[in-house]
Amino acid sequence: MPRYKLTIEYDGTPYAGWQRQENGHTVQAAIEQAIRKFCGENVTLGAAGRTDAGVHALAQVAHVDLTKDWGAAKVRDALNAHLVMADERVVILNVERVPDSFDARFSATARHYLYRIVNRRPPIAVEANRAWWVSKPLDVEAMHAAAQRLLGQHDFTTFRASQCQAKSPVKTLDRLDVTRRGELVEIRASARSFLHNQVRSLAGSLMEVGVGRWKADDLVAALEARDRAACGQVAPPYGLYLIGVDYEPF
Amino acid sequence: MPRYKLTIEYDGTPYAGWQRQENGHTVQAAIEQAIRKFCGENVTLGAAGRTDAGVHALAQVAHVDLTKDWGAAKVRDALNAHLVMADERVVILNVERVPDSFDARFSATARHYLYRIVNRRPPIAVEANRAWWVSKPLDVEAMHAAAQRLLGQHDFTTFRASQCQAKSPVKTLDRLDVTRRGELVEIRASARSFLHNQVRSLAGSLMEVGVGRWKADDLVAALEARDRAACGQVAPPYGLYLIGVDYEPF
Repeated sequence: MPRYKLTIEYDGTPYAGWQRQENGHTVQAAIEQAIRKFCGENVTLGAAGRTDAGVHALAQVAHVDLTKDWGAAKVRDALNAHLVMADERVVILNVERVPDSFDARFSATARHYLYRIVNRRPPIAVEANRAWWVSKPLDVEAMHAAAQRLLGQHDFTTFRASQCQAKSPVKTLDRLDVTRRGELVEIRASARSFLHNQVRSLAGSLMEVGVGRWKADDLVAALEARDRAACGQVAPPYGLYLIGVDYEPF
Repeated sequence: MPRYKLTIEYDGTPYAGWQRQENGHTVQAAIEQAIRKFCGENVTLGAAGRTDAGVHALAQVAHVDLTKDWGAAKVRDALNAHLVMADERVVILNVERVPDSFDARFSATARHYLYRIVNRRPPIAVEANRAWWVSKPLDVEAMHAAAQRLLGQHDFTTFRASQCQAKSPVKTLDRLDVTRRGELVEIRASARSFLHNQVRSLAGSLMEVGVGRWKADDLVAALEARDRAACGQVAPPYGLYLIGVDYEPF
């Protein structure tokens, strides 16, 4: 059966996360339903990142096997037509034929996340559900400098949700950049893989540094505590975007 | 009575436009309600632009008279607290005390609008209700060049809604720029004042140029026809943002 790689954009607001579940509509279910309408097949998608409720994606990646050898552009356009008809906030950006060895989750060599904060005194309207509103002024230079001390391989237990199913809390953080453009503060995080809630936990703890409640040393002490209780606030889901997944050339 | 100038941001999606009306919730009503909750006063706001249903604002301007001489920051923070509590998608960015001669509508010397198009083959998810999706490739250079021929003082009857209440269809268009950043195409329009639906009518007609159905000469011919029937498609409201209003220093 031909295997297809799907690159997917979604507004996470109306969904109970990526993963199909009994209660609540999910992104995975929306796409599987579109596939059923397109070719009548009942499939299960594998995805690079199982994003939580409210989390967005600009380039989630999933793979699926179909019985028939459809053209990639045909699959993309047909799924989009069904997704639009069903009024879903999910779009297939790209479809590629890939070898059977390709697995959206296990073949990924890097995952890239963006966390968006709007930092200003008034609340947000146009960016509601698209960014985290932080009213206290953030010292972005202090946040970025502190973030650099978390790079590399560490036991990230502090920044891991209690329901995280990863076998090991040891991960290698390759990038954690904090930048400002006007009132928009952006945190960019890259790693081969992340623990459940790791980016939101890091974003929330960096916010503690930004408002001056924590120094860089406090952030490092939190990491070294290897204790979930040492984590700062967990940033809300609606500021988080899965923006890309890397794979070896195939 | 002290007069206040309010600078306002809103997501127009859930509103039946700016102006208070019998049926449907409006931005004006949301703010007037917040003022009533704040100080018990029943006021009527005057605004620089009466945006249509679905149109957004990054910096709408309105004025209001209050009986008591509140501090400007106090008014801003109190109104925002009430707007957040009422779950409105409206935020007061700034409040200033202004002279009684200030009128948000009649004192304005320029209005600035942005029209956002996402130009790509797949539909849009994250930008739904925030931009117009145009799937055919747009020639932005051709759009910009054609747009320059509409600058200056003209009878804009072609680009005017039939229900427009302006006394004269003659307006002076000071800026109509079309630029691209990746898949985002932005149209920026500035004038002392606009006719009803003028920016959306211009955006829709520029789209006709962008996809190659119209040449620049066709756009000029449409203008010169002074006939609503000569207008291209009217671009949808959700791509339009009122981004600023200028006033003489006071």
